[in-house]
Amino acid sequence: MRLTMASDYALRVLLFAAAHCERMITIEETLAANNISRGHLMKVVRVLANKGFLRSQRGRTGGFTLGRPPAEIRLGDVVRATEPDFRVVECFGPGSSCAILPVCRLPRVLKEALAAFMAVMDAHTLEELILRPDDFGLSLPAK
Amino acid sequence: MRLTMASDYALRVLLFAAAHCERMITIEETLAANNISRGHLMKVVRVLANKGFLRSQRGRTGGFTLGRPPAEIRLGDVVRATEPDFRVVECFGPGSSCAILPVCRLPRVLKEALAAFMAVMDAHTLEELILRPDDFGLSLPAK
Repeated sequence: MRLTMASDYALRVLLFAAAHCERMITIEETLAANNISRGHLMKVVRVLANKGFLRSQRGRTGGFTLGRPPAEIRLGDVVRATEPDFRVVECFGPGSSCAILPVCRLPRVLKEALAAFMAVMDAHTLEELILRPDDFGLSLPAK
Repeated sequence: MRLTMASDYALRVLLFAAAHCERMITIEETLAANNISRGHLMKVVRVLANKGFLRSQRGRTGGFTLGRPPAEIRLGDVVRATEPDFRVVECFGPGSSCAILPVCRLPRVLKEALAAFMAVMDAHTLEELILRPDDFGLSLPAK
């Protein structure tokens, strides 16, 4: 029962951006503060920017910052943006091999359980989780 | 956001056993009715038998059957028996590399969401899901 690494990293990146919301942060800073590979980080930042959770700015003084106030970033919406699917079991996807698929009542229960999980995620926003810059164990230069 | 294949298969095996609860079913029958590899099936049956969800009998006339009434098999308990962990994100396991682990409030939210998922699973039993033997698309010999 796991979220993908992309969701895990997305939440870490948003927490890092939220701790520094008065300014742009860079990929280099985010890499230094989080044990994430550059490739994964770039991909996650791109997804979060596409969905409006981050706003990025190119160029020498560029970087990224939150794309909307942390109180408007629901954790459920972040996970919806980064999970490739919510295929809790095989038959939730296309081409299931399960013989009882047309009559099975298990998917209904699993969908209800998944909805309960997401309802909790939707009830919480990034604002509740904001940390101080110091909490990331870096002393970053003021900009 | 997925359950492991072991949980998926365990639920299918229990559904198959519940549909034939008046008699022992065999590994061969279960293989014929479910698109599962023999290795995975054997492993899942062993886990389910160890936890008392199945009762197995060795020998030429052996096989397995439900180890308790379907009304007493909560879906949450099945998933607890077959999921290797509930490591929704990396920091739920040992040796997390996350810098903010001591102060981060995200795990609390994720644990709350996971508890909501499991509460739904615990509210449903195998009895609600029982199918007829015909639903498995096999015509099995009467024993």
